[in-house]
Amino acid sequence: MSRHFESAPGLHEEKDAATRGFVFNQTMLRIADPERSLDFYTRVMGMTLLRKLDFKDMKFSLYFLTAEEDLSQISGNETTRTTQTFNRPAMLELTHNWDDTAESADYHNGNSEPKGFGHVGFHVPDLEAACERFEKLGVPFQKRPDDGAMKGLAFIKDPDGYWIEIFDATKVSDVCREHLG
Amino acid sequence: MSRHFESAPGLHEEKDAATRGFVFNQTMLRIADPERSLDFYTRVMGMTLLRKLDFKDMKFSLYFLTAEEDLSQISGNETTRTTQTFNRPAMLELTHNWDDTAESADYHNGNSEPKGFGHVGFHVPDLEAACERFEKLGVPFQKRPDDGAMKGLAFIKDPDGYWIEIFDATKVSDVCREHLG
Repeated sequence: MSRHFESAPGLHEEKDAATRGFVFNQTMLRIADPERSLDFYTRVMGMTLLRKLDFKDMKFSLYFLTAEEDLSQISGNETTRTTQTFNRPAMLELTHNWDDTAESADYHNGNSEPKGFGHVGFHVPDLEAACERFEKLGVPFQKRPDDGAMKGLAFIKDPDGYWIEIFDATKVSDVCREHLG
Repeated sequence: MSRHFESAPGLHEEKDAATRGFVFNQTMLRIADPERSLDFYTRVMGMTLLRKLDFKDMKFSLYFLTAEEDLSQISGNETTRTTQTFNRPAMLELTHNWDDTAESADYHNGNSEPKGFGHVGFHVPDLEAACERFEKLGVPFQKRPDDGAMKGLAFIKDPDGYWIEIFDATKVSDVCREHLG
């Protein structure tokens, strides 16, 4: 059954049955150094590496990370786990071309010209505690919660400089209220 | 309980308790024309607009789309629905700066220099049927399933030119097998 929550020009939310079972699975970012990025996304962000695929002939590796906490249904069998990796929502896919190193590669985060992609974003249960921990761990901030017009939202930077928005979902309405038209 | 599925330098998967409850919520892309993009993501991709936020003073709007099919728990109340939007996985966030139009804005998809973000990706239950439908709907392809070295994966382009990978999760292992080292 289709449900409609908002009105806007262009919306067609009577679902075409042909789209049934589509899953928004992944967001792919190129990275310069997998050791640096895996450390960040697993140690700092608490993600789990579900699957790593090494494409020997094309000299690149893909790292699929999830923030899910209950991984009890994930298989130890690689083929099964590949299927599980590709049909679940919210995977972060990091691509490393083997010729790239932290010294040689400098990927574009999309927030200066030419703009495009902006950021990925994480809900955290306690924004203040999360940001204090990021500070303590030496994570660079693009915007601290008290900076700028939008108090209560932060942006940190991953090792390649991609922006990660950090917010507490229960407080977003308050943060936005004075700006909403 | 932490589980470990792959080995790689940099991994720290004994979860820091401070990361408990982190949710990989969103991927943000700038768009030139919301009507064009909402038509594409709802009609062609079958997504639902869960929340739209208009920032009057800063002249931009945010459109939060989900591919989830069971939306029975989503609230009609805007404040509650904002919280639900920001604490669930796999939201696509489209940002429209009000001065942008399809004619005036040309966002960078990250796959030519300067590279960075690569694509978002969707699992579909029937790749052939999905791609035939995309063709019929006039969706541009970056790569058809039979093009190139990776048979069985497709890339389509959204109205701003962002790449969307299309695959059937149950077949990814077969598609990749000959390339894996």
